[in-house]
Amino acid sequence: MRKSIATVSLSGSLADKLTAAHAAGFSGVEIFENDLVSSAPAPEDVRRRASDLGLEVLLYQPFRDFEAVPPDRLAAGLRRAEHKFAVMERLGVEQLLVCSSVSPAAVDDDALAAQQLRILAERAAEHGIRIAYEALAWGRHVSDYLHAWRIVRMADHPNLGLCLDSFHILAREVAPYAIETIPGDKIFFLQLADAPTLPMDVLHWSRHYRCFPGQGDLDVAGLVCNVLRAGYDGPLSLEVFNDIFRQAAAMRTAQDAMRSLIALEEQVGARLGDSPHAAGLALPPPPVVPTGFAFAELATPDPGSLAGLLNALGFVRTGTHRHKSVSLWEQGDARILLNHGSPESPDGPALSAIGLESPSPAAAVKRAEALLSPVLPRVWDPHDAPLDAVAAPDGTDLFFCRTGRPDHPSWTGDFSEDRQDAPGDPGEITHIDHVALTQPWHQFDEASLFYKSVLGLRPHESLELPDPYGLLRSRAVSTEDSGVRIALNVAYIGTHETDLSVAWQHIALASRDIIATARRLRAAGLAPLPVPANYYDDLEARHDLPPERHRLLRELGLLYDRDDHGEFLQFYTVTAGRVFFEIVQRIGGYVGYGAVNAPIRLAAQHTSPHHRSS
Amino acid sequence: MRKSIATVSLSGSLADKLTAAHAAGFSGVEIFENDLVSSAPAPEDVRRRASDLGLEVLLYQPFRDFEAVPPDRLAAGLRRAEHKFAVMERLGVEQLLVCSSVSPAAVDDDALAAQQLRILAERAAEHGIRIAYEALAWGRHVSDYLHAWRIVRMADHPNLGLCLDSFHILAREVAPYAIETIPGDKIFFLQLADAPTLPMDVLHWSRHYRCFPGQGDLDVAGLVCNVLRAGYDGPLSLEVFNDIFRQAAAMRTAQDAMRSLIALEEQVGARLGDSPHAAGLALPPPPVVPTGFAFAELATPDPGSLAGLLNALGFVRTGTHRHKSVSLWEQGDARILLNHGSPESPDGPALSAIGLESPSPAAAVKRAEALLSPVLPRVWDPHDAPLDAVAAPDGTDLFFCRTGRPDHPSWTGDFSEDRQDAPGDPGEITHIDHVALTQPWHQFDEASLFYKSVLGLRPHESLELPDPYGLLRSRAVSTEDSGVRIALNVAYIGTHETDLSVAWQHIALASRDIIATARRLRAAGLAPLPVPANYYDDLEARHDLPPERHRLLRELGLLYDRDDHGEFLQFYTVTAGRVFFEIVQRIGGYVGYGAVNAPIRLAAQHTSPHHRSS
Repeated sequence: MRKSIATVSLSGSLADKLTAAHAAGFSGVEIFENDLVSSAPAPEDVRRRASDLGLEVLLYQPFRDFEAVPPDRLAAGLRRAEHKFAVMERLGVEQLLVCSSVSPAAVDDDALAAQQLRILAERAAEHGIRIAYEALAWGRHVSDYLHAWRIVRMADHPNLGLCLDSFHILAREVAPYAIETIPGDKIFFLQLADAPTLPMDVLHWSRHYRCFPGQGDLDVAGLVCNVLRAGYDGPLSLEVFNDIFRQAAAMRTAQDAMRSLIALEEQVGARLGDSPHAAGLALPPPPVVPTGFAFAELATPDPGSLAGLLNALGFVRTGTHRHKSVSLWEQGDARILLNHGSPESPDGPALSAIGLESPSPAAAVKRAEALLSPVLPRVWDPHDAPLDAVAAPDGTDLFFCRTGRPDHPSWTGDFSEDRQDAPGDPGEITHIDHVALTQPWHQFDEASLFYKSVLGLRPHESLELPDPYGLLRSRAVSTEDSGVRIALNVAYIGTHETDLSVAWQHIALASRDIIATARRLRAAGLAPLPVPANYYDDLEARHDLPPERHRLLRELGLLYDRDDHGEFLQFYTVTAGRVFFEIVQRIGGYVGYGAVNAPIRLAAQHTSPHHRSS
Repeated sequence: MRKSIATVSLSGSLADKLTAAHAAGFSGVEIFENDLVSSAPAPEDVRRRASDLGLEVLLYQPFRDFEAVPPDRLAAGLRRAEHKFAVMERLGVEQLLVCSSVSPAAVDDDALAAQQLRILAERAAEHGIRIAYEALAWGRHVSDYLHAWRIVRMADHPNLGLCLDSFHILAREVAPYAIETIPGDKIFFLQLADAPTLPMDVLHWSRHYRCFPGQGDLDVAGLVCNVLRAGYDGPLSLEVFNDIFRQAAAMRTAQDAMRSLIALEEQVGARLGDSPHAAGLALPPPPVVPTGFAFAELATPDPGSLAGLLNALGFVRTGTHRHKSVSLWEQGDARILLNHGSPESPDGPALSAIGLESPSPAAAVKRAEALLSPVLPRVWDPHDAPLDAVAAPDGTDLFFCRTGRPDHPSWTGDFSEDRQDAPGDPGEITHIDHVALTQPWHQFDEASLFYKSVLGLRPHESLELPDPYGLLRSRAVSTEDSGVRIALNVAYIGTHETDLSVAWQHIALASRDIIATARRLRAAGLAPLPVPANYYDDLEARHDLPPERHRLLRELGLLYDRDDHGEFLQFYTVTAGRVFFEIVQRIGGYVGYGAVNAPIRLAAQHTSPHHRSS
């Protein structure tokens, strides 16, 4: 299907917006009137620029407060419309969006609305223009699409049809299935937006919090199915008002938008199945869901201290890269790479790459590429195993691996065996439980859509975590079996006033006996991140555990949580540069990440003398 | 009255919060449990630290989901409470806040709630602790204070009383006057917060958007009057959950908080008049409302280009400072100082100071000082007129002046007359209409409270202005007669991703004939900020003005607006460094600032080749 975006969804000048829409692969745009009015280029120049970029100008919008006015006000509305028609002819756009009136002057009279819209359509027809009438969710008298459709049907003019907008329909919880009763050729245009569920007035919600399909909680795909079943064959057009996207770079936002539409088409295709309505849908190669973590790589200027920490946790150095400054550390199925050959990070050690076990690395990269993710060069060195890797939105490299499988060259083959003497007693760590990545503040929605659409991970509920210097937002994405779990964190509002960095990343290691692991660390002379005694006093108030259990948690500095499925124990190492390790033990079917304890951890990290060392 | 603040209102560690509360002059604090639980110092250490700072720990909070549970759950609640009592004894705090339950386990049974709260109060009494029961606005069964009071009365225990919270009461539009029916000694505690009117669920609103009294739209002063008339003589305590304050520096937020309480006491005092209930209220010296602008001062590394611009606008250089590198430019009652002797601003010219005509400069400074504003040294040089000046929150210096009045030394006396030849025809500019100051993003509420409380200006509605790189928030403050108008602007969310500065400041000059002023500028070879032709096409659609009028607006690059009271014409100069001039003409009683045209201006400034020059 043709894909379009409203200029209001992107930041910058109108020229910037067109460039970004083109670069991301859109074939059409809606021009938001304010974007034109505040631009220096004349409509003819905009038309030429769009045409040079292969962009069709599909819709001009919005035309407000026209219909259902007392007869003496009609002339003023038509006069206004004639001005718009003139601009539209210069722009070369043949469709005008008319929103249902919010004016106090509007009368609650469908026949009057229909009569006046018919006159408008007649005038528009003289210019070869079509009128797409949209029910705003907060329209004064017309606020749902079926009401708008009754009026359009009553007006009965070939140049008058409907514009449907997923937000206006789904935000008011108007059932979308009745869309299928509308003849497809009377649906002139389809605007798409998603939104997270937020407890607020629909107008405020719409103006500030819309997002691209797949980033929120609305069933946009279901609505598109209804629209296609009605016989609509026009473009899918994104119209998003979002405070953060307004501040973000247009090129990147446009790419995020296109990724959302591709994933949406795929979802719609899956729901429509063999239906002829699915004919126009282009399908990307299917997602290749990873099955586990192959490794996590830390870039560090000084591998010594991290090596000491890994040793203390029970890891063993098992290999050295044949020609890079990278060492491999293993324990159970947990593998950590220490890379001291990459350009030095100004903040000290950083989590630079994640290896994911993939059923098919090559197919995983194809999927990522189809969803506009930057694919990394496959061959860095002819002697190494080929790399199948993409860059995540925050710049972390994601490698798709098949570790030690006969059907695929293994990355481990690039390492020469370099086994230290194994420690007397093997460690308790079994695998990487999850990694936590802090996102740039304007890329949180992009990141969750990336992991969802590119890797097929499932986003979980978005949480608020109080940090001493501001709320953080946290959202986990995981595979269905939790073999891969990634926690995405972001500062709640823009940036912090203080210079304290909250760009920490961490690797959470699963231990089958966290008490032994905690003792092992201490025995090696390393202290975990200190947990306040006050935490344990509070824990005793909250949880009636056996006194011996409380004593042990307190003694070892373990944090505790419980849910309906089981228990969770965790502790942290002190932070080096931007990274730290978390050790966790899940007992029973505990599904969370200890969010209740995150404020304790954050406060301790801010006051820990190590937290800014590199 | 004693003044207190909840630790949750301030950022940082618990120790930082106590230090900030003390520095701002608070005598008490409420300790928010999470702040203690995540802190390393033991309760005894916190108690000692507070005591060393002269801070009384007045309340420990919150204790949740206790009352009205089935009898088998009571023991668990009491067990939890005993732990809290133990911590409270160590902290030396004698009051526990109990919030009305939000638990699904709670039963809608006032008698049961009363019975269980009585048991809690009996246990508390054994520790010398009082229970302050608060109706959360979103409590499951108890959500208004009269309901909570019925339960407290039914429980009838001396250690059980009410905590009233202005947000919980006013946000739900529960009438506060019935507070006066509650015996004052049963109101154990009073928490205060304000909030802007926002169309959202009360819980979401409370958690993210509370602000200090006077910064929002709730009648907090009226509620305090009710509480004092009831006979309450406890402290006024601020409890604010605000996403921005969480990220801001604690010392500054605490000062802002204290300023809000001082202004609140004053308002309450004014409303209570001679009532004995007003006895405990300390009153600051009254505000001294400025009557107009004396001058605006621009710090500039290169006065030449600004001098040329002023000349072109019809200004005449009339004086030179006797020993500073400052020149005075005048036209009508508009006075501009060009200062090229101050430290160079990295961004080029900046609006560094504003002179305000004041009925009493000395009294104005006393007022500012009583409201914790930084007063600038009065004597810089023994030869100059003494300065009465304070620093506004954004760092702009505000001078209180009496220009050319016999009763006070005039700042103009520091300038030697240095009159150029007046131009052939005198200019049309009559005075400074307003100045616009961009605020640091985390200081917007602080700034509007500063201008309201320190200068007695009236805040107007907060507006959203679409900039190509994000929404801006804009709020004007003015005197009743509009003699002084200041527009405060801020980026809507934190900072921008792009490096484009939106820290522009400007001086708006009133012209009695803006067409002549526009022609004058052009005749001098200077172009105003260009306005797109598309703007005029749209203006013709929006306003049915005479064609000649439209032609003239377009020819001269004037922007147009209209309200119920009159018309508004405006144009802008190009930006130099951080500043530009606006020329306005108000026709009839137009009261606004041309907000509808701000997006046109912002878009033009972003694309203007001059906008980043210095």
